[in-house]
Amino acid sequence: MKTVKEGEVRRREILVAARELFVSKGYEQTSVNDILKVVDIAKGTFYYYFSSKEEVLEAIILDIVEEGARRAENVLKDKSVPLVNRIMMAIMAQTPEFEGSDEIKEEMHKVENTKLERLYLRAMLKRMTPVLEEPVLEGIERDMFHMEYPTECIESILLLGHMMFDCDVFEWKMEDYPKKIKAFLCNVEKMLGTKEGELNVLMNMFGQ
Amino acid sequence: MKTVKEGEVRRREILVAARELFVSKGYEQTSVNDILKVVDIAKGTFYYYFSSKEEVLEAIILDIVEEGARRAENVLKDKSVPLVNRIMMAIMAQTPEFEGSDEIKEEMHKVENTKLERLYLRAMLKRMTPVLEEPVLEGIERDMFHMEYPTECIESILLLGHMMFDCDVFEWKMEDYPKKIKAFLCNVEKMLGTKEGELNVLMNMFGQ
Repeated sequence: MKTVKEGEVRRREILVAARELFVSKGYEQTSVNDILKVVDIAKGTFYYYFSSKEEVLEAIILDIVEEGARRAENVLKDKSVPLVNRIMMAIMAQTPEFEGSDEIKEEMHKVENTKLERLYLRAMLKRMTPVLEEPVLEGIERDMFHMEYPTECIESILLLGHMMFDCDVFEWKMEDYPKKIKAFLCNVEKMLGTKEGELNVLMNMFGQ
Repeated sequence: MKTVKEGEVRRREILVAARELFVSKGYEQTSVNDILKVVDIAKGTFYYYFSSKEEVLEAIILDIVEEGARRAENVLKDKSVPLVNRIMMAIMAQTPEFEGSDEIKEEMHKVENTKLERLYLRAMLKRMTPVLEEPVLEGIERDMFHMEYPTECIESILLLGHMMFDCDVFEWKMEDYPKKIKAFLCNVEKMLGTKEGELNVLMNMFGQ
């Protein structure tokens, strides 16, 4: 048991060091050797946990998904916020800001790396759908939401939000965003089957 | 004027030959030389039109988008089909079957090539949104659809359909599909603001 735990600790040390290096030096500019130096381990130890630098980046991306899901879970705990707003705020809180780590974000969004983007998206959808199921089912029970397919509705909202606002798939101009966000919230209201205007508080945040 | 036209004809010859080769031999197994032989041109002529084999593949993907959009436009012409069904059938008709060209589809869906998938998606969204705007605006005018943001509604429907059913982003099992398709059609009804059950004809196509 002890060894397993130590192994997990070691793996985490590598991830933390690599993440810091990717952020400060850039992903391309960081070598496996740089990581070894910071963690103070032998090459063999590194390759026991990861087969390549790219695999480290993939593990970091899964960490980012996990961190986002936990932020979302925290937001959902605050029962003082009306349910539907809480759900949308949880989705927003989930979005990785890549705290200061533009390097990782950039790496993920590079054309060569849409593979990593896809990895992020799949992991995020899997992790976040159950997180949102609880509040959505609560909304249905309280007669605030009306839908036949709650899971699929959540999947669609997460997917649309990600593709439109994190992935820039439409290449909208900055000035388009207020309208696009409102349209998105309007579609969310419809899919959840809320009263019209239930998301007005959020919509107003994005001006006229 | 004549030269421009001849250039376009030559470019098209290269595309047709390359597409046939990619389909019959596979993309990886096809070299620029193979293409030169079929079209019977010099290397310099090829590189006048394309900078690489990959650029040819990109041009083929744009062709696939164009062909899909034309199929959709044709479907929309058949006024005997009720409007909302016609719109959904146009979206389905647009989906590339890659007529026999599993090779191109495979190439596009390879993890290394999510870049091509993104290229396809962006081009498809740009090309198809205006195609669907006309019938959707007609539906609004005829009081069949009710929505505040028609363009964004079309964008969302196209994006969801593509990501869920062409891209396999959720990695659903075969047996999940009937439910997922119904849930999708149900969300489409809500976003378009049709009468409930307006898409029942289509839904019934996907069994119970």
